[in-house]
Amino acid sequence: MPASYAYLGPEGTFTEVALRTLPETATRELIPYVSVQSALDAVRAGEAEAAFVPIENSVEGGITTTLDELVAGAPLMIYREVLLSITFALLVRPGTKLSDIKTVSAHPAAQPQVRNWLKKNLPDARWESAASNADAARLVQEGQYDAAFAGEFAAARYGLEALETGIHDAENAQTRFVLVGRPARPAAPTGADKTSVVLWQRDDHPGGLRDLLGEFATRGINLMLLQSRPTGAGIGNYCFCIDAEGHISDRRVAETLMGLKRICLEVRFLGSYPRADIGVEDVRAPRQGTSDEEFVAASDWVARCQDGRF
Amino acid sequence: MPASYAYLGPEGTFTEVALRTLPETATRELIPYVSVQSALDAVRAGEAEAAFVPIENSVEGGITTTLDELVAGAPLMIYREVLLSITFALLVRPGTKLSDIKTVSAHPAAQPQVRNWLKKNLPDARWESAASNADAARLVQEGQYDAAFAGEFAAARYGLEALETGIHDAENAQTRFVLVGRPARPAAPTGADKTSVVLWQRDDHPGGLRDLLGEFATRGINLMLLQSRPTGAGIGNYCFCIDAEGHISDRRVAETLMGLKRICLEVRFLGSYPRADIGVEDVRAPRQGTSDEEFVAASDWVARCQDGRF
Repeated sequence: MPASYAYLGPEGTFTEVALRTLPETATRELIPYVSVQSALDAVRAGEAEAAFVPIENSVEGGITTTLDELVAGAPLMIYREVLLSITFALLVRPGTKLSDIKTVSAHPAAQPQVRNWLKKNLPDARWESAASNADAARLVQEGQYDAAFAGEFAAARYGLEALETGIHDAENAQTRFVLVGRPARPAAPTGADKTSVVLWQRDDHPGGLRDLLGEFATRGINLMLLQSRPTGAGIGNYCFCIDAEGHISDRRVAETLMGLKRICLEVRFLGSYPRADIGVEDVRAPRQGTSDEEFVAASDWVARCQDGRF
Repeated sequence: MPASYAYLGPEGTFTEVALRTLPETATRELIPYVSVQSALDAVRAGEAEAAFVPIENSVEGGITTTLDELVAGAPLMIYREVLLSITFALLVRPGTKLSDIKTVSAHPAAQPQVRNWLKKNLPDARWESAASNADAARLVQEGQYDAAFAGEFAAARYGLEALETGIHDAENAQTRFVLVGRPARPAAPTGADKTSVVLWQRDDHPGGLRDLLGEFATRGINLMLLQSRPTGAGIGNYCFCIDAEGHISDRRVAETLMGLKRICLEVRFLGSYPRADIGVEDVRAPRQGTSDEEFVAASDWVARCQDGRF
């Protein structure tokens, strides 16, 4: 049996396109699953080596289905991330003109990204939600709807043509995907890395969250995502999904995690992995006093003091 | 023309039930709108006095459609909040038995709240999403689906019967709704109040968010909601929707807002309004040193010092 990657299907969506940018997919079987939950369950059950799912979107924010799956259940770990720019094509059956279009379809997540375009170009078209953008393309092929918003790459698969391409209401619309596997030793740092954790506060008091964030700030670590998610214990009860700069093998990150472990009710480590947004050459140097060398020198100094050798 | 309240329709949903708990609805015309956006637009356009929409849910967290509408566009203000416990009834045509049910329908937001119940009681039933729970009930009435998850109150309206009631996967599942109007002087404090704001950071640096939260913590103010929302400027760019204890007429809240105004790029005040979760008798006293009297006394003391009368 070849090693396989599960991914959020069906075939022909942005998720598959993003997944195929990873070189290792050439030697893996790629298996579409109907939901984020089922793809991650395949990993938990050992049926797939890893699962590839969307986790954040510059229009909609954190993708809560994915975050909630990582927050609960058997621990999983993020191995890789991929950023994909999202622009839509308007796919139609060959020969269809813009003025012929009475119904348009796509996944509901596409709607906020094409709303202004629709208002301007097809103000009277009726919106019909589909299970995925690829499914919308299939329904256009079958004649149920007149047009679908999907990736341009989906046109060929469904015998459609792109009447318009590059449709996106928001500039820089991107989706972030992650490759998730079972817990293992994180890959070595690349120099441009990110660490993800979930934090549960010990109790709720003024400054509680400020104190958690202070653990990062004290070590000069910038946050890239802070998304609150309900714990299920009623309104106002939240845990926090956090992405921070750096790798767990960096001293400043390791010490931050130790600080969080001391003050939180629970900390779930979700992995350290290479950043997809910038390369090593664009990473800021650690803030003065937070480099590995400075941590080591400070630790040595305290040891010498404790030893009476100052 | 009577004063009217817009609300997220259709009729016969939890939103309408929550809205009708407000005494002032007796003298208002209540008009259902097809979306949160259209209901709030009616307020902005002056067609409705206020709009009533869901904003937070103990299973799904902040309701992003509503938050994004309050964050952008012409300013609106929250006047009231309502908490409603959410449990579902399984509505069927009279005479239908559990074993007859092949398809079930509801709004997608209901799915995570009934998933476990379905797995246990109707493992083979096919899920069909509907535009609302009330719409699902209507489709059951028309024979398109076999059963709908909706509020028990919807049964009578659609000639259905409740085969089961009190269905809820999560204990204490609640939804929070808000009554939103155009900016005006907030109602006087009740002693158990909440203040909502949106914060945009001036720049992104380690400790930036910690500094914002420090403005609250320094004045002993507890947070009840912190939800990040994308600014639309690409992955990693977020503003923060925050609910905090207290009323803008409390000195500690007013001073916190002034602090935020100084250090943030932008602060949007979304209102101070009575808390629905607890009454005045259950509100914690302000932390030592943060009561109005202590603020006044401290301010007087500094004035005397400046005046050489210490």
